[in-house]
Amino acid sequence: MSDMTAVFSDIVGDNNLLSGDAIPEDYAHDEELTAPPQKPAYLAKPARAEEVAQLLVAASDHGVPVTARGSGCGLSGAARPQPNGLLVSFDRMNAVLEVDTANQVAVVQPGVTLTELDAATVDYGLGYMVHPGEASSSVGGNVGTNAGGMRAVKYGIARHNVLGLQAVLPTGEIIRTGGKIAKVSTGYDLTQLIVGSEGTLALATEVVVKLHPRLEHNASVLAPFVDFDQVMAAVPKILASGLTPYILEYIDNMTMAALISTQDLELGIPDKIRDSCAAYLLVALESRTTDRLFEDVETAGEMLSELGAVDAYVLEGSAARKLIEGRERAFWAAKALGADDIIDTVVPRASMPKFLSTARGLAAAAGGGAVGCGHAGDGNVHMAIVCKDPDKKKQLMSDIFALAMELGGAISGEHGVGRAKTPYFLELEDPAKIALMRRIKQSFDPANILNPGVVFGDA
Amino acid sequence: MSDMTAVFSDIVGDNNLLSGDAIPEDYAHDEELTAPPQKPAYLAKPARAEEVAQLLVAASDHGVPVTARGSGCGLSGAARPQPNGLLVSFDRMNAVLEVDTANQVAVVQPGVTLTELDAATVDYGLGYMVHPGEASSSVGGNVGTNAGGMRAVKYGIARHNVLGLQAVLPTGEIIRTGGKIAKVSTGYDLTQLIVGSEGTLALATEVVVKLHPRLEHNASVLAPFVDFDQVMAAVPKILASGLTPYILEYIDNMTMAALISTQDLELGIPDKIRDSCAAYLLVALESRTTDRLFEDVETAGEMLSELGAVDAYVLEGSAARKLIEGRERAFWAAKALGADDIIDTVVPRASMPKFLSTARGLAAAAGGGAVGCGHAGDGNVHMAIVCKDPDKKKQLMSDIFALAMELGGAISGEHGVGRAKTPYFLELEDPAKIALMRRIKQSFDPANILNPGVVFGDA
Ligand SMILES: Cc1cc2nc3c(=O)[nH]c(=O)nc-3n(C[C@H](O)[C@H](O)[C@H](O)COP(=O)(O)OP(=O)(O)OC[C@H]3O[C@@H](n4cnc5c(N)ncnc54)[C@H](O)[C@@H]3O)c2cc1C
Ligand SMILES: Cc1cc2nc3c(=O)[nH]c(=O)nc-3n(C[C@H](O)[C@H](O)[C@H](O)COP(=O)(O)OP(=O)(O)OC[C@H]3O[C@@H](n4cnc5c(N)ncnc54)[C@H](O)[C@@H]3O)c2cc1C
Repeated sequence: MSDMTAVFSDIVGDNNLLSGDAIPEDYAHDEELTAPPQKPAYLAKPARAEEVAQLLVAASDHGVPVTARGSGCGLSGAARPQPNGLLVSFDRMNAVLEVDTANQVAVVQPGVTLTELDAATVDYGLGYMVHPGEASSSVGGNVGTNAGGMRAVKYGIARHNVLGLQAVLPTGEIIRTGGKIAKVSTGYDLTQLIVGSEGTLALATEVVVKLHPRLEHNASVLAPFVDFDQVMAAVPKILASGLTPYILEYIDNMTMAALISTQDLELGIPDKIRDSCAAYLLVALESRTTDRLFEDVETAGEMLSELGAVDAYVLEGSAARKLIEGRERAFWAAKALGADDIIDTVVPRASMPKFLSTARGLAAAAGGGAVGCGHAGDGNVHMAIVCKDPDKKKQLMSDIFALAMELGGAISGEHGVGRAKTPYFLELEDPAKIALMRRIKQSFDPANILNPGVVFGDA
Repeated sequence: MSDMTAVFSDIVGDNNLLSGDAIPEDYAHDEELTAPPQKPAYLAKPARAEEVAQLLVAASDHGVPVTARGSGCGLSGAARPQPNGLLVSFDRMNAVLEVDTANQVAVVQPGVTLTELDAATVDYGLGYMVHPGEASSSVGGNVGTNAGGMRAVKYGIARHNVLGLQAVLPTGEIIRTGGKIAKVSTGYDLTQLIVGSEGTLALATEVVVKLHPRLEHNASVLAPFVDFDQVMAAVPKILASGLTPYILEYIDNMTMAALISTQDLELGIPDKIRDSCAAYLLVALESRTTDRLFEDVETAGEMLSELGAVDAYVLEGSAARKLIEGRERAFWAAKALGADDIIDTVVPRASMPKFLSTARGLAAAAGGGAVGCGHAGDGNVHMAIVCKDPDKKKQLMSDIFALAMELGGAISGEHGVGRAKTPYFLELEDPAKIALMRRIKQSFDPANILNPGVVFGDA
């Protein structure tokens, strides 16, 4: 392959095209745990959709693989570049173009981080409610992975909050899909096809996101349970009550112990209870008025007791915030404690007890362990897998994913399959669906330049 | 083309395959206003996904166009069969297979009507919240059109409430997409691509729909306004308040007059007010408790007054129900009053005043009229177009659609483009997007048998 430095430089300008050793280490990986870092041949930082289009046309013409990168905090290896490839970073396309209060949307460039978008919307009493655990992640990355996070149980996932895109096709056309509109039935929904496609179909250069009113008052109830199955049985009851929690997480005892020690949490739970309980349910409520919040918190507490909780601790203000933030950092705690891999399998939520007990049994049988927490309201189980032997780990992961699929679930609820989970996806998914997805990929990307290897594996 | 009667009969049984004159008139049309009825050559009523698959394989092999039909109450002509084609009716696939309370989903066959699904879920305190105006419509039809309806402002459209499908590809493969799960990031989202594709990509043979808790208490506030723009300006304010109405409709004065007279509504609004006001806002609220409902109704009433409403009438029980049902039948009122066409254009909701006043100006200039109501919370404007001259009407519709698109909207918010709006779609939409959609179509349906003509027009 010829050296493309001059071609790409011409498009984005010398200052915005790096190659070889000049590319910083950070661009060689995302936060996926297992793959070694891999620098790309070229790193381009375009400033406009037109530049992105020119980059893709040049890459198509010369067969250069292209990987899009937001903040690189994905957990599936999907933003990990190819050694001979071009990494398109959206660092410079990071403007909040508009906060439109009348339509309750924001229009942003893909490189905007969740922290930046939060700051841009807070004064309007509105917010983008998609919150994967990592606030430095970008809106473009959220589009790429179809990010979820703790608030999805009330506000939905990225898919439900991305209303429109400006997107560049690998063939260089710049299209607009959807818009500042809540619904559309006019041809196929290209927005929703691109969301979650992990940079394999098109690159988003502008994103219209839905904003929701921020309800002023919130509090959390933390309920320890002796019995794991009771935790899970409580979930549908709480959801059916109409209390509409905005967070509904389970945290197993080992994960809670790790969070308490690594995050220095003060929860006021007596040791005796901590030692005896198998898992916790975290129910966060919010309301327009304090009266209603108190009422709802009381109702939730009573329900939890009836459903078998040992106690129900009401956390407000900074105590609640610290626990929620601690939960968001569960990944770092798992990493620090030596997790060999992580999964974010989704199953029908009523199947969580079966899934968890079977998965833990499988892990134990493989001489390893599986601990974690998860978006209980969504059936989205986040587990740290401990299993030092690579072959055994591979088999264990495959068995766990097969189990999830038998139960009617899927390999990934929100992280994507990226590079890390693609082998399992190709092994376990219905070949007719994979073949159809390949044809869809081909209809967007005839030269197969966008993130080859991701979703479909290396040829 | 050879006679396919024997082939199709072999698949579904003699009793379930009709041809020629034996096909009842009702199968020759949906509720679209303008196209003449058109009987298909064959009408098949399969009982199982496998039969649907065999029908599609036979049709593919012999180049027979296939149209899926739910209840035939679509408004875009998308269920109108081809003269030489096969109509696949889901009349016999109308079982509610499962109401799964723990996962808060129902699994249904596509022919189940909304009335049937409502009856099957009510005792569990749960409900499928997608309610296009016509309760005899089928879940399969809702999937086909990506149906919306009045409650979409709170509960979302079909897209947000369809979690999974069993679907038959035109090539005969039976696939399962999504499931009883709220989120998935594992390959491309085939569910969401099929939803809204108007029977052109695949036929749904089983649908997993989301159920929501039914909140027990509800009431409506009806607010007349003298000034149309004030109605529209009130919409974002109400949505930003956190009151979360489950219905937020505007009804213009002519439409309200038609509803009152055709539906025999008793709203208790003095003639003087009715005569002087330009439009009404209907705000329906629901709650877990009566206390909160009363409080919210009061807050809504106060807000509406501050926002310029002449008055605010609180409707409960049967009065509220009758008005909502009356609004659902606005289409029949428009039809009875001689509407020449109807549109369900969507625009960013803040652009509704501009859109409505300009559209009415365009209609007047064409010697016609445009009156209506709509899902104000979603920017989804339903208008009856009165314009007797067909050429003028065509130009008027094209101008109105072009206007909507200039304002950042789309031709159809929820009815689909079907056959009726496809010429405008092909005229006005970005050719790059249409070309991409054609390639997607091709990746599903290489023989182009599924509803040819719909979305892409006749070759
Ligand atoms: C501590 C921690 C906790 C986390 N918790 C959660 C969680 O609860 N829920 C959750 O969903 N995720 C979670 N994640 C994962 C991560 O936050 C999300 O995947 C996020 O969406 C990644 O955003 P990013 O900007 O870092 O994307 P990147 O990692 O840079 O990219 C992710 C994918 O998007 C593609 N992409 C990037 N930009 C674009 C673009 N403009 N157009 C098209 N494709 C693009 C990339 O090619 C890649 O395929 C967590 C991560 C960490 C480190
Ligand atoms: C009085 C009235 C009010 C209405 N109000 C609204 C409203 O507020 N909001 C709204 O969205 N709609 C509204 N509609 C339109 C209509 O109710 C919806 O379009 C509904 O979804 C149609 O369902 P159906 O079963 O009648 O579908 P059909 O008309 O039979 O078919 C509609 C489309 O779906 C396809 N289809 C049918 N079954 C399947 C299947 N199993 N798999 C794949 N494709 C399939 C068909 O091929 C066709 O393209 C209204 C209609 C009427 C008559």
